[in-house]
Parts: sequence; C-alpha cells; structure tokens
Amino acid sequence: MSAHDAAVSTSLGARIDAANAEVVRRLTEVETTWVGVGRAGDVIPGLEPNLVLHSGPPITWDRMAPAQRRSVIGAALFEGLAANEAEAVAVIERGDVRLAPCHEYATVGAMTGATSASMAVHIVENDAFGNRAYCKVVERELQFGLVEPSVFEFLAWLRDGLGPVLDDAVRRHGGVKLVAHTARALHMGDECHNRNVAATALLVRDLGPDIAAVARAAELPRVFDYFRRVDQAYLGLVMASAKALTDAAGGIEASTVVTTLARNGVEVGIRVSGLGGDWFTGPAQPIDGAFMPGFGPADATPDIGDSAIVETVGLGAMAMANALTAGAIAGGSAQQAIARTRDNMQVAAGRSRSFTIPVLDFEGTPVGIDIRRVVATGIRPFVLTGIVGNRAPWGRIGAGVVRPPLEPFVAALREFGRRFA
Amino acid sequence: MSAHDAAVSTSLGARIDAANAEVVRRLTEVETTWVGVGRAGDVIPGLEPNLVLHSGPPITWDRMAPAQRRSVIGAALFEGLAANEAEAVAVIERGDVRLAPCHEYATVGAMTGATSASMAVHIVENDAFGNRAYCKVVERELQFGLVEPSVFEFLAWLRDGLGPVLDDAVRRHGGVKLVAHTARALHMGDECHNRNVAATALLVRDLGPDIAAVARAAELPRVFDYFRRVDQAYLGLVMASAKALTDAAGGIEASTVVTTLARNGVEVGIRVSGLGGDWFTGPAQPIDGAFMPGFGPADATPDIGDSAIVETVGLGAMAMANALTAGAIAGGSAQQAIARTRDNMQVAAGRSRSFTIPVLDFEGTPVGIDIRRVVATGIRPFVLTGIVGNRAPWGRIGAGVVRPPLEPFVAALREFGRRFA
Repeated sequence: MSAHDAAVSTSLGARIDAANAEVVRRLTEVETTWVGVGRAGDVIPGLEPNLVLHSGPPITWDRMAPAQRRSVIGAALFEGLAANEAEAVAVIERGDVRLAPCHEYATVGAMTGATSASMAVHIVENDAFGNRAYCKVVERELQFGLVEPSVFEFLAWLRDGLGPVLDDAVRRHGGVKLVAHTARALHMGDECHNRNVAATALLVRDLGPDIAAVARAAELPRVFDYFRRVDQAYLGLVMASAKALTDAAGGIEASTVVTTLARNGVEVGIRVSGLGGDWFTGPAQPIDGAFMPGFGPADATPDIGDSAIVETVGLGAMAMANALTAGAIAGGSAQQAIARTRDNMQVAAGRSRSFTIPVLDFEGTPVGIDIRRVVATGIRPFVLTGIVGNRAPWGRIGAGVVRPPLEPFVAALREFGRRFA
Repeated sequence: MSAHDAAVSTSLGARIDAANAEVVRRLTEVETTWVGVGRAGDVIPGLEPNLVLHSGPPITWDRMAPAQRRSVIGAALFEGLAANEAEAVAVIERGDVRLAPCHEYATVGAMTGATSASMAVHIVENDAFGNRAYCKVVERELQFGLVEPSVFEFLAWLRDGLGPVLDDAVRRHGGVKLVAHTARALHMGDECHNRNVAATALLVRDLGPDIAAVARAAELPRVFDYFRRVDQAYLGLVMASAKALTDAAGGIEASTVVTTLARNGVEVGIRVSGLGGDWFTGPAQPIDGAFMPGFGPADATPDIGDSAIVETVGLGAMAMANALTAGAIAGGSAQQAIARTRDNMQVAAGRSRSFTIPVLDFEGTPVGIDIRRVVATGIRPFVLTGIVGNRAPWGRIGAGVVRPPLEPFVAALREFGRRFA
C-alpha cells in the first residue's frame, strides 16, 4: 500500500467509525413509544387492499418457501381477494395480488410475515425521529402457514376485539415506552426474541388497570386470556420498536452497520446503513434447534422471518446471556449462552446503552453488526429464531439458533468498497 | 473419645443425617396451593378478636421495638379495641389485648408482622400434609409502623374489596400452585424475598381472566392497579407457602435443620425441627443495606420480620444468584451475589429440587440451614430483608442483607446435645 493509499484508507476508516458511532447512537440512545393498534390498511402508508407483505428480502411467488406461500394464500383469502385456494393462487400468479417485503413498508413480520390490509397491527413511534413502524398483533397460526376458518376468526378478533381495546388502553395509559420496557424484561430472563414472557407479563400488569377501564365487561376475560396464553405477545411490539429504530438509523453515509437482517426461508437479506435500500442476499441456512416431539430438521423451513430485526438493536442472541433459561431451551448451557453473546460482541460496532447484561456485571449488549468485522473475522453472528414446518400439518415445530450466510456480508462490503474507496 | 463414644457419635450422626434428609425432602419435594383469601379471624384457628400477632420470637410489650409497638397499637385501633393511641397502650399494658408470635398461629408476618382478626390473609395449603398457613395480603404501611386513617382505609379495602375478588378468582382458577409459580419467577430475576416483581407480574397475568370474570366492573381497575403498584404483592404468598412447608417439616426427631428463622427487631429466634417448638434467641443485628435518600443506619430498626421463612426453604439470599439485578440493588455485584449463594451452601443440609439457579447451570438452591454446620464453620447464613425505620416518619427506609447472630445456633446445638447425645 502506498503512503497515499494508506492515508486514504485511514481517512475512510475514521469516516466509517464516525458514521457507525452515529448509527449505534441512534440504535441505543433513542426511546420508542407504542402509540396504538390499528387496522393495517388504515395505518400503514401504501398498504393497498391487494398487497400482501411478506418477511425477508424481495422474492417472487415461484421461488417462495412453501410455508410462506401458504400464508400469502391465507392473507388473500382473509382479504376476500379470492374465494378459495385455487383462485388465490391464480390471482397471485396473475399479479392481481401484489407481493412486497414488509421491510419496505415500515413493517416487520414474524416467521412468514404475511401482513395485509385487514389485519391488526401495533403502531410504534420513534421518539427522536418521529417515524412510525408496524408489526402484526401476535397471532399463532397464519404466520406458520396454517390456513383454516379458526385462523381467520382469530385474526378478525385481533382486529375487532383485542385491537380496539388495546388501542384505547394504550392511549389512556399515555403510550408505553418500549425501550425502557424491554430493558426491564431483559433483567427478568427475556432476550426478547425467543423469550418474551417477562415482557408480556409486565405489559399486562402495567396495562391491566387501563384495559379494565376501557373494555366492555363481556370482552375482558378474553382479552386477559390472550395475554395469559400468548407468551410471545410482546414480540410484535419489540419487533416494531426495533424497526422504528433501524429505519431512523438507515442512510448514514459511509456506515458499515447492518440495519436490516431478514429472511424469507429461501434467502437471507441484509441492508446496510451506508448503502441505502439495496438488499444483499445469500441462501437461508438450516436452524440448529430443539424440535417438538415428532419433528426434525427435515421438516423445517430454513431460516425465516423479520424477527432478526431485534438482533440488529442488541436483543435476541445479542442478549442470550440475559436469558439463561431460554439458552437452556435452545439446547445449550448457561455458560454457552454467555459465550454466544461474547461471540456476537466480536462483530458489533458498539454496546447498547439501553440493554445490559446482569451476569456480565451490566455490560451493554452488542449492537450494530459491522459488515467489516463479519468479513474480517469470518464470525457470522448468532440469531435466535422459531422454526416453521415445511409441510402440513403447518405450525411451529421448534426453536433454535442460526447464523446468516457470509455471502451477503461479502457482497455488501464489496459494494461498499466500490462506492467509497 | 472412647470407642464407645465414637460409635454412639457415628450412630447419632447417621440418625441426624437421615432426619435432615427427611426435612429437606419435605421442604423441597412438596407442592403448596393458594386456596383463597379470608378475614384472619374467620380462618386462622385461635385468632381471637383481642389477639394481635407479631413477627419474630415471643416478646413482651415493654421490650418491643418501637416500630412493632406502633403496628400493634395500629392493629388494636383497627380492631376497635381502643378509641385512641393512649387507650390502646393502656389495654395492651393491662393485658386486655394479648400478644403472640405469628409463627405460633400457623401465620407469618412481614416486617413488624402485626396481624389481627379483621385483616385479610392469604390461605395456603400444603398439598402433601394438608396443613394450612396464613400471611397478610401485602399492605404497605402498617407493617412499617405507620398508623393513620388512610392506612385503616386501605386495610379495610384489602379485606372487603380486593380480598373477596381474589378469593373468588383463586377458586375459579382451581387454586394456584405456589412452588411451581415461585420456581418460574426464580428464572426471571426474582429471589422472592426482596424481589418479587416477576412473580407478581406472572400472578396477575395468570389470574387476569379469572379476576375479570368474577369482579364487579367498577372494582376492576383498582384491583389491577394494586398489582401494578405493589411489586412485592407476591411476598405474602411465598411466605405463607414457606410456612406451610416448614410447619410440616417440624418435629422430625433428631433433625438439626432450622424450620423457623424469625426476627422482631430486638431478638432473632430460631426453631429447629428436632427440638419441637422451643425458641433459641440472640440479639437482632444491624442490616448492611442500601438506604433511601435521607436515611441511614441510625434510623433503622434492627433485623425484623418473619419473611426469613423464605430463606429456610431455599429462597431469598439462598437464591441471590437468581436475582442479579436485586443483588446489585443491595449494593453488590453479580459475582458477589453468586458468592453469597455459595456461602449459604456451606451451611445447608441439602439442595432444592424445586428451585434452581440458571447461572450455576441449574444447580439447586441451598435448603435446610443445619445448626451443626453453622456452629462448625462459624458461617451465619445471609438473609435478605427490608429495613423498617425506628421513629417517625414511619416507613420503609431501605433494603439489604443481614446475618443472624451465632448465639441461637450455639444454644440450640447445646440443647440438642443435651437431649440426644
């Protein structure tokens, strides 16, 4: 390297470091607020009646994972865009039902991610930047590819029963500060990806008086029963919170920090703050997981869902050392969970100021996956995930850990070099 | 030691070990059930209208700590046994109001522990032995010596408002299994003495649908608000659960395990399974604590309350390594909290099968304080505790850790030798 090249390189390195520090600041020093719940078509800009959003990077119908196809068919039926499954496939193939990534509509979707106009979504606002992000009120079945009348009934109740109650309760409460709420749950055994039981319990405890004040007496037991049954109820909120933060951390010139990490079961896609909206993709990986009885790796859709958004803000596998119980569930020991968090620290641009790890004497969780570090070390960060079946009976078949492939990081760094070197 | 004495000693040692194993089994392999809430005078056998129960070993009025006196006066007023404070003192001094330890009435009381007939108590049953134990529904003020109309209004609401709702909800729920519930909270950052926030949040989450189904709509927001405001709401339940277990573990001949550890602010008293109902006492110790702003050690009542019952079943300081956040609040680091749990292991007869420590790869918490080990090692087990002020303004002034004095352990072991050697 010539003296001139070295000077350029040093200068670019310093510029990248400064840009990354700004991204980390936006990811860890900003609060978000749950402001309400609404019908997706009413609140998500651009979500037309014939549009179905899906998790992960862009993908065409013909390449879609079977489970995600099922969910898209289900969404088309729920929206009344087709009368039966065959007709749904036909209108999708004709392009009368359009497909697009959730991520491009300020939205994130767990597992298959299918989100359409008539579904209930959480509305979360970035306190510093004012942008809003959205995520479905957590349902149990459509996101795993299950399509049947009871699924539609439940989705309708989330929209017409639970949604309005929560919307009123949240407004009565004056909004719920989600970064603070998440930080609290992180000291109660949650990492807020695979495990959200503390966050969910704290949420229903905090909102209990408001729910009791706004709901009709006849509706109340079912509302409280939802929170009692759905351990992961908080996932929709923490995902929307992370999306609100990462959207405001995108577009920082010369930053090498990942602001999107999303999977559709076929490909894993990343977007990098300094590289605008471009997706860089590689093959979705098999999951190292604990399977439910009767299921195994052969039954699994590869890595899928937008929920890895929480890893980009220092949660999930970045905070595995907070959730030693969940770590055990994923098949490891407490010490292994701590080791995995330390592994992820090696590829992070910074440490969270919001989320801390008690067992490491309150060190911050790693935040800001730096594509330079991933490529230089070859360490692909751990991500926690649920596991979706790949055929009937559709459903959740386990949970585990996965690492994204190296390709998108290499491709993104190459493009970064082309633009900035 | 002669060969004869050695044989006797070995034989006694084996007999003690077997007895202690049975006590540990009763403390760690038995479930308890929260069966309801009632008016103390209606449900606690022998709790006559003119009897006020207090925490700790027996003590006469003239020797009582000032804060405990205040609470007893408050109880006498609440019961209508006197018209004003001066009259209350007079009827107590005359003996028209009787005093007795909670522990001798199948009851435990936090802090000053004042419990009388018109107060609301939790009813907890030992699933294996059928015995019942009681503890006040957690109130915030009388237990810290505060006596004023708002305190009485709140106590009345606990009895007439919250109590009946919880009683109906718990029955509708089919009872709540408290050992299982506690075990779950222990994996969420609680140690269930100074920190019960996870257990409380899980409780309101689990009972939410039942509460919503049984309560009048107008009462609901206040009921949920109680659980939202009172982080320690679960303490009354975990104390009663521990009392139900320890009462059934008492009276095992030749056991050297402590089944009562209770303090009244003047003395610490222990009872030992193999020594029946006899109390062994020593001076209450100052607390190593974190004080609220404006308060310090000079303002503190020494070690007080029956809540150390939870340490006797493997909770509280026995599980400090579960609650690294609370450990930090008590002024220490995560590593110190882990070290304190290990310290306590040295004086324990066994390990819990119910309560495990994630950070120690799910090792059981230490259970069964063995007076032999305490005397042999000189290690007095850590106990967590709240701190009660010693003068007006009465209230909670901090929280911390304390060790009981050595005297009661020495005295108990001496008596044990006299009876069994």
